[in-house]
Amino acid sequence: MGKVPLGEQTLYIGIDGGGTKCRARIITDDQRVLGTGVGGPANPFHGVQQTKDSIRTAAELAAQEAGLSPADMGRLIAGVGLAGVNVPSLYTVMNQWHHPFKQMFLTTDLHIACLGAHNRDEGAVMIAGTGSCGYSYVNERALFLGGHGFPIGDKGSGAWLGLEAIKAILLASDNLGPQTSLSDPIADLLQAKGVMIVDKLFGARSADYARFAIYVMDAADAGDEVAVRIVKDGATYMSDVARRLWATQPGRMSIIGGLAPRLVPWMDADIANRLSPALNQPEFGAVYFARQAMKKMLSIEPVSSFS
Amino acid sequence: MGKVPLGEQTLYIGIDGGGTKCRARIITDDQRVLGTGVGGPANPFHGVQQTKDSIRTAAELAAQEAGLSPADMGRLIAGVGLAGVNVPSLYTVMNQWHHPFKQMFLTTDLHIACLGAHNRDEGAVMIAGTGSCGYSYVNERALFLGGHGFPIGDKGSGAWLGLEAIKAILLASDNLGPQTSLSDPIADLLQAKGVMIVDKLFGARSADYARFAIYVMDAADAGDEVAVRIVKDGATYMSDVARRLWATQPGRMSIIGGLAPRLVPWMDADIANRLSPALNQPEFGAVYFARQAMKKMLSIEPVSSFS
Repeated sequence: MGKVPLGEQTLYIGIDGGGTKCRARIITDDQRVLGTGVGGPANPFHGVQQTKDSIRTAAELAAQEAGLSPADMGRLIAGVGLAGVNVPSLYTVMNQWHHPFKQMFLTTDLHIACLGAHNRDEGAVMIAGTGSCGYSYVNERALFLGGHGFPIGDKGSGAWLGLEAIKAILLASDNLGPQTSLSDPIADLLQAKGVMIVDKLFGARSADYARFAIYVMDAADAGDEVAVRIVKDGATYMSDVARRLWATQPGRMSIIGGLAPRLVPWMDADIANRLSPALNQPEFGAVYFARQAMKKMLSIEPVSSFS
Repeated sequence: MGKVPLGEQTLYIGIDGGGTKCRARIITDDQRVLGTGVGGPANPFHGVQQTKDSIRTAAELAAQEAGLSPADMGRLIAGVGLAGVNVPSLYTVMNQWHHPFKQMFLTTDLHIACLGAHNRDEGAVMIAGTGSCGYSYVNERALFLGGHGFPIGDKGSGAWLGLEAIKAILLASDNLGPQTSLSDPIADLLQAKGVMIVDKLFGARSADYARFAIYVMDAADAGDEVAVRIVKDGATYMSDVARRLWATQPGRMSIIGGLAPRLVPWMDADIANRLSPALNQPEFGAVYFARQAMKKMLSIEPVSSFS
């Protein structure tokens, strides 16, 4: 391979921030992974400071694993994909961060997921994790669908499934809706029964509701009618998202996120069968993005203006 | 009437705390209203300190109007009804408050609404305001329905109508749901169109969503299919609540709250026709409650233990 010594190489860090955790991966210019790290939640919609802290934690852990010194953080070219930064005010706030890197190139979590999944500029992805959304990039035009956040959007996501489950459990506990087998496992998890779960959900956020999603999927798979209705509603939405994305002719489409393997069997068969596996994780897409952004900068600005 | 001089009378203050405002009314032992005041939001589920501040503001304004000095606050026997205090932890926190009154008797907003609406111990009420819920008190047994708060409950409430409207507008703006005439007035209100409303809803709470309810009612009355579906869903829930309350044989049932007059025409006719007007406002119910609680205390404790 004729490796360039590490000390002379350009080092990249790819960062993927989501509602429950933040992943960082340090990658050399010749594509070797030197270290990875995981931090806490990194969705600026739910907390800008927490997002910065989580990115920093993930980056420091990755640098540690890569055998880099704390001072080396200033060498890294960072590609950062975050949920929520399609909202202009959040993009601005995050982009003004006095980050610890040499350069930081910020884009959406969807954009880096798409670049990673297809290892090329064009394609489409859906995310089904704590949140949900769809994205395609074709002929230099991006289409965002969903991803509006909790509780106003993100249908079919873990947080949405969890919230719908809680609503159904409360209706059942008031005898104002059908009984559901969801009540018992979620009572066990929350250590509270019926209306007492309200107390336990005080101040709960999207990641808290997403914890219940697995129980909704289990109950739906076991035929619980309330859970089936919720899951079908969410999966139908994701199928609708896929149809609109295919209309942009992205060539290739993937679905990623912790909920994806459980949700796909509930999606319309014609949609589920056309999905392709993601080739690389979003962190690789983030580095791909940073590398392209660097190239653009080099082609329009003198090198001396960088640091 | 043979009035007792004001300086010698027992003075009561009735306080009704809700998601958007807090009303206080100072009433003499012989039922004369001396002053009223209005403070900000007072739902401890959304902020305990704000609730205390709003109660204090409402009480001070009422005392001012009554011509009482600040020191007179310590003379008042307070009956306080608050949303959210059916959650035990919130009841405890609010009840431990170092309040400015001589005595404070705390109960739910539903309880004082019911006592006020019927001017007697037994009856049933539904509230359709920022939140929604149902309550009946018959044979010394209380039944609470709904009132679980936003976003997990309170179907049919202003906040719920507003949230459902925002969800529908976002689906429409993604072409993933039917278009709706709701989009334009809410875009005007938020000074943002389509997906840009997400930015404006950053950190929005139940009272913020409840602002949209009137537009949902207007659109439904004008026949907009999306709005009709939302309003019918909410009104059907309230009809179901009423049926469960009637099953407890409360004798009399009222619906109160800012949204009630608009929602009733959408409820099932057999339910809507059996509703009776509320006789008094909840603040009078709060004083009724405080007076009864005082009587109970006097019958079991020596007077000297009061202050």
